[in-house]
Amino acid sequence: MADHKKYRIGIDLGGTNIKIGIVNSSHKIIAHHSIKTLVQRSYQKIIQDMAEAVFFLLKQTGISLCECQALGIGSPGCIDFKNGIVVFAGNLHWEQVPLLEELKKYIDLPMALSNDANCAALGEVIDGAAKEYKNAVMITLGTGVGGGIVIDKKIFEGGHAGGTELGHTTIISGGEYCTCGRHGCFEAYSSATALIRDTKRAAQKHPDSLLNVLCDGNLDNINGITPFDAAKQGDFAAKEVIENYIKYLGEGIINMVNIFRPDVVLLSGGVCNQGSYLTDPLNNYIQKYCFAGKRAYIPTVIRATLGNDAGIIGAASMIE
Amino acid sequence: MADHKKYRIGIDLGGTNIKIGIVNSSHKIIAHHSIKTLVQRSYQKIIQDMAEAVFFLLKQTGISLCECQALGIGSPGCIDFKNGIVVFAGNLHWEQVPLLEELKKYIDLPMALSNDANCAALGEVIDGAAKEYKNAVMITLGTGVGGGIVIDKKIFEGGHAGGTELGHTTIISGGEYCTCGRHGCFEAYSSATALIRDTKRAAQKHPDSLLNVLCDGNLDNINGITPFDAAKQGDFAAKEVIENYIKYLGEGIINMVNIFRPDVVLLSGGVCNQGSYLTDPLNNYIQKYCFAGKRAYIPTVIRATLGNDAGIIGAASMIE
Repeated sequence: MADHKKYRIGIDLGGTNIKIGIVNSSHKIIAHHSIKTLVQRSYQKIIQDMAEAVFFLLKQTGISLCECQALGIGSPGCIDFKNGIVVFAGNLHWEQVPLLEELKKYIDLPMALSNDANCAALGEVIDGAAKEYKNAVMITLGTGVGGGIVIDKKIFEGGHAGGTELGHTTIISGGEYCTCGRHGCFEAYSSATALIRDTKRAAQKHPDSLLNVLCDGNLDNINGITPFDAAKQGDFAAKEVIENYIKYLGEGIINMVNIFRPDVVLLSGGVCNQGSYLTDPLNNYIQKYCFAGKRAYIPTVIRATLGNDAGIIGAASMIE
Repeated sequence: MADHKKYRIGIDLGGTNIKIGIVNSSHKIIAHHSIKTLVQRSYQKIIQDMAEAVFFLLKQTGISLCECQALGIGSPGCIDFKNGIVVFAGNLHWEQVPLLEELKKYIDLPMALSNDANCAALGEVIDGAAKEYKNAVMITLGTGVGGGIVIDKKIFEGGHAGGTELGHTTIISGGEYCTCGRHGCFEAYSSATALIRDTKRAAQKHPDSLLNVLCDGNLDNINGITPFDAAKQGDFAAKEVIENYIKYLGEGIINMVNIFRPDVVLLSGGVCNQGSYLTDPLNNYIQKYCFAGKRAYIPTVIRATLGNDAGIIGAASMIE
């Protein structure tokens, strides 16, 4: 990086908010700003607002565009990274949006676009839980299961838009319905949504389970923490839910290890707040079942540490 | 390539034979030679023989080492491509063999080592069924299910040895036993071995099936062609075997498409001799279930065309 190009701009584009950060040469976010996405507007208007928000943040921090090296955006959905196009993003209501071309009308910087899960993975490798490593698979356990892959400190994109959809690989073909139209995807077993679904089922099946007490008899009160709380108090039904959840998560992780064999596997999302209660049994499972066993390198599963900042730092770091 | 460096050497190392080819600048094998591996010998002796066979072939064809640009080897097993080490290869009885270091004692050329399935995939992209493409996933349906991935006309290796084991990703967690120690791997449903197993089961379950006629009442006579022959004659049990086989193969292929989103998916192995009887329903299945459907690029499944030459051509092409 040229000395006077000290900063990078990272943008985390979401269905609700557009988060913008200015990242310094030590990979720290030194200033940030957030605006509402307001997805009902045209993409042109949203991108114009995005540009204005960037200039607002630069002005507020006294940094000029000339001091910036690059700008990167992490977007949900299928991304054509080569052409800077959002091919399809359900929660933005976007199809074939030429995001970078549109943004370049306002901002004259080298730009890159990738999927938000990819950016988060890169952020963790650049300055987060995996900063000692070059290769990582990151799995985000939220409403769905997102996947990001970093090889040699760069995002691995695959060939075309629609790749690295790790959550949409079946682990039990013909099993639970997945929003992608298939049955049995990793996401349909390992997302927080799936955990809540299985906890509700267990509560119904076992009326005497502590799960029913913890949710005050209302299944709608069950969240991703409920089964862990009940299991820690010894509840049999909850323990079974957690055991199965960890087994399926382990299966999906091993699949990714057998394909990518990364230095480390990162987990993010609210479920990871369970810490070693989640990662210890996962690591035991992986040690046991990875292809070639101890003859090959077996990565450790660890928690991501940057939270929401990962996406901004990763986005800002896409261009060398 | 410098003008006088017209040739490359490709080696396909197997448990039974070591096949060596000299490949010209048009990616054609202009001469080949094969020797027995004789795996009961020390690796040093095997590699010495390999070197002697290379010099024998060069002498026979009147090509000097100075006219060669590079040498590449495709080996079975887990490969540490960065260090040229065969980490583990069951059918060679090798563990931690420094193959390139040993071979360099005899031959002074730039060398590269990769997994044989990776080399075959590269060969098909360089001069085979996928030569119009840059990105391919190749799946070999044999005793097991091998996987090779090519991105931007280069082998994708992942982070560490033991990656790109596409056959060892579960598609039905807890299902059929796999030789890797897990249950439900892609390989346990889509290898020729799995097809034969399921055909035998169908023959036993349906005594009146044509399958029992075609094998002369001896299940040991069933091979990977038997169920196709019976299905083409309208046998119900055989049709069901083939339908299930194609469904599982389709599931595994879609998983790889959702991860790598290649230009094309290549199939190789004896089962592929069924041609469009296999690829047509597979392509229909994939069109229907790939993530994001027609909004994203959906690769076509085609047959590999180079056969055994793919591994030699790919191995020879690893170094630019």
